[in-house]
Amino acid sequence: MLTRIDHVGIACRNLEEKIDFYTATFGLSVVSRETHAEQGVNEAMLAVAHAPAGGSYIQLLEPLGPDTPVGRFLERRGEGIHHVGYGVADVTAALAAIGATGVRLLDSRPRHGSMGASIAFLHPGDVGGVLTELVQAPSEH
Amino acid sequence: MLTRIDHVGIACRNLEEKIDFYTATFGLSVVSRETHAEQGVNEAMLAVAHAPAGGSYIQLLEPLGPDTPVGRFLERRGEGIHHVGYGVADVTAALAAIGATGVRLLDSRPRHGSMGASIAFLHPGDVGGVLTELVQAPSEH
Repeated sequence: MLTRIDHVGIACRNLEEKIDFYTATFGLSVVSRETHAEQGVNEAMLAVAHAPAGGSYIQLLEPLGPDTPVGRFLERRGEGIHHVGYGVADVTAALAAIGATGVRLLDSRPRHGSMGASIAFLHPGDVGGVLTELVQAPSEH
Repeated sequence: MLTRIDHVGIACRNLEEKIDFYTATFGLSVVSRETHAEQGVNEAMLAVAHAPAGGSYIQLLEPLGPDTPVGRFLERRGEGIHHVGYGVADVTAALAAIGATGVRLLDSRPRHGSMGASIAFLHPGDVGGVLTELVQAPSEH
């Protein structure tokens, strides 16, 4: 069902500083910058690996304010790894299969994610404390 | 410098239960089980993706006792994502380059990691709260 580790989502207080750090320290490049008002984040995707059907990225997440999911995460736990996203070939089918096992879905239907992907989150309380995202890249549509 | 997301390390209280969960829910397979007494963990590697030079894995980590790094992590933060490991072609060269930027190295020299890899950790305090591991797979030696 899972095809790759699509990304690691990292919560940070200052997106520009973290972009500078990751590009200078690890030689990565920013391949996308987006603001998702409905998720309350400014984000940047840095490519770790490329692949024909979906690559692997570091996703840096800066909250748009304290009363957002990432803002609350920073208040509670400080900067660090916020979630992991796994690639899937068909996010709708994956959601149905995972939901059938009893895992609660934060998104019962896919929604729009970074770089044109279709995404859905699983409830971390049912995945051993791991906020888990499923990602169907545009090339997999 | 980074070639892939080698693995996401996930801290758990009961390795057997989490292996059962990940295999049943996501259809993954265990490709390695090891005990690292010096790190204080029992671990399992579940393959998300295969590649000629190093794949991508979920690494499940169960502490051998409370007074271990993963045991203390569980006490402090509960189950969840513990660290991320990135593939590198040459871990010694990567450590030298990263150390030269001022990032503190938890391992100044590579040591033995899972599945025959050479690994080294960077100080999370210098990587935005992210415990970061570099992994040179055996096929990259």
